[in-house]
Amino acid sequence: MGCNHTIHKHNHHFGWDNSIEPVLSVDPGETVEVETIDSSGGQLNASSTVADLGTLSFDAVNPVTGPIHIKGAQPGDTVAVTFLDFKPSGWGWTANIPGFGLLTDQFPEAALRIWNYDADAMTPALFGPGGKVPLKPFVGTIGLALAEPGLHSVVPPRRVGGNLDIRDNCVGTTLYLPVEVAGGMLSLGDTHAAQGDGEICGTAIESPMDVALKVDLIKGENLPFPRFETNGPVTRHFDAAGYKATTGIGEDLMQAARDAVSGMVDWIAATTGMSALDAYMLCSVCGDLRISEIVDIPNWTVSFYFPKSVLD
Amino acid sequence: MGCNHTIHKHNHHFGWDNSIEPVLSVDPGETVEVETIDSSGGQLNASSTVADLGTLSFDAVNPVTGPIHIKGAQPGDTVAVTFLDFKPSGWGWTANIPGFGLLTDQFPEAALRIWNYDADAMTPALFGPGGKVPLKPFVGTIGLALAEPGLHSVVPPRRVGGNLDIRDNCVGTTLYLPVEVAGGMLSLGDTHAAQGDGEICGTAIESPMDVALKVDLIKGENLPFPRFETNGPVTRHFDAAGYKATTGIGEDLMQAARDAVSGMVDWIAATTGMSALDAYMLCSVCGDLRISEIVDIPNWTVSFYFPKSVLD
Repeated sequence: MGCNHTIHKHNHHFGWDNSIEPVLSVDPGETVEVETIDSSGGQLNASSTVADLGTLSFDAVNPVTGPIHIKGAQPGDTVAVTFLDFKPSGWGWTANIPGFGLLTDQFPEAALRIWNYDADAMTPALFGPGGKVPLKPFVGTIGLALAEPGLHSVVPPRRVGGNLDIRDNCVGTTLYLPVEVAGGMLSLGDTHAAQGDGEICGTAIESPMDVALKVDLIKGENLPFPRFETNGPVTRHFDAAGYKATTGIGEDLMQAARDAVSGMVDWIAATTGMSALDAYMLCSVCGDLRISEIVDIPNWTVSFYFPKSVLD
Repeated sequence: MGCNHTIHKHNHHFGWDNSIEPVLSVDPGETVEVETIDSSGGQLNASSTVADLGTLSFDAVNPVTGPIHIKGAQPGDTVAVTFLDFKPSGWGWTANIPGFGLLTDQFPEAALRIWNYDADAMTPALFGPGGKVPLKPFVGTIGLALAEPGLHSVVPPRRVGGNLDIRDNCVGTTLYLPVEVAGGMLSLGDTHAAQGDGEICGTAIESPMDVALKVDLIKGENLPFPRFETNGPVTRHFDAAGYKATTGIGEDLMQAARDAVSGMVDWIAATTGMSALDAYMLCSVCGDLRISEIVDIPNWTVSFYFPKSVLD
């Protein structure tokens, strides 16, 4: 990928801890190729079955490669990461993990679907139970070290980034992360071949990839949260045929989101014959949670958009 | 507009009440042209100033034209409304109304901006303080009568629809609404020339229009909430140049949404010199609130996407 540096995937860590020694130190403006391990930490592979989910060790999930020390970065600065290229692996997985996901009460049972996709052509990937999902690789987890000492779970995202699961952290996007410790200490992993806004079942198309990125430093911006910029449209790979959309309406955004997604699962299951659980997992990799209105007191409208092209 | 029926705008009502007599009764499959009054109820016009906001009577806001009785509609059925055409008026307004809006604490002062746009060409409309906003007319408020007797405020949307403010209720979309009373009793108004997902300052480009629609009836679906289908892409008029996006991250979706929007207001104000209040109103008419992830316990990521083309 022609970068200034390469970090191999054995240089990974679990969770965030600002005492972890950097594996690389870069000058602002340099490029790095980063190998990543899938979010199962290599515990799942293209031959895995749902039985393997039952033995998954959560101590070994969501490894991130790094950390990368950025020379000159100080608290209050911003690290800008531009995603240059992805080298996808051609396989991935989507799971419903009991206790995890937006509709966990409705879907308590474990499920696993393996995806195989053409890593060169990157044509839409077949979902076994039905549907073809357009692919757009991105980095699910990318962040800097926290100022607070000690080990912090990798699961929640925070002000310094982390498990953001923003599906537009893809080629051409620049992500801006607030620095809390000297050197910033950038790590990333949890690459996805496709995901909708919300990642509603808790997993995307989890797929290991190599990621080429450029690291820049902006002094003294004091960002309160991450920002990003895309260099083009974000949903054209999904939207040619339009969308089916469901809504949830009420005083609580979380419940409205649940109602919107639940409605879509019902709609897809009823019109395709797919099981509700498979429809739920399909929604996670291609459907979008949008807040249609958040001002019409006291009820908000949350909508879930499912691209019709996936089931055409 | 060549419809089977026309309802003139004097046939409007304020709030939802299932005892309001229908102004028209239609057979499923028929088309209706509906004249609407802007959401100020005609209290504002193209010459209004911010002083007129101070004397706005809230008893006369958000009139809806109707109701339309749909023959054969019974509780449990679905009324399907397909939007065929809009005849925009060429003017509109966007206001910050004290006490109303996502960032009402941050923006307590009244503000009003008047828009004039080319109702034939529908080219992007100039925002006085800066920016050009692509237009896509839609119906902000459309719903059926509630089963519960009495008068219900028009402000919040509910299971039967109402002030949904879903910006994709535009030409080509079919909206499905659950019926709670015999005849359904469809009313609509509050047309907008443009709005982003969230309608974050509380108003869009509020603009009176005539709306042509087709009404159909689907028996016995028992929808829990409204649904809709678009017949094509939803954001291509916005997204050619990509987006700037800000995030809010935390345990509460509402606070995360506030943080994301607040971050964008700061970003736009800092890079354009526009006042924060104007940036806030501009965000309301073209920026989108998306839930990037809602599963990475305990923190959710809400992102606010602002289309770069508006400020290019």
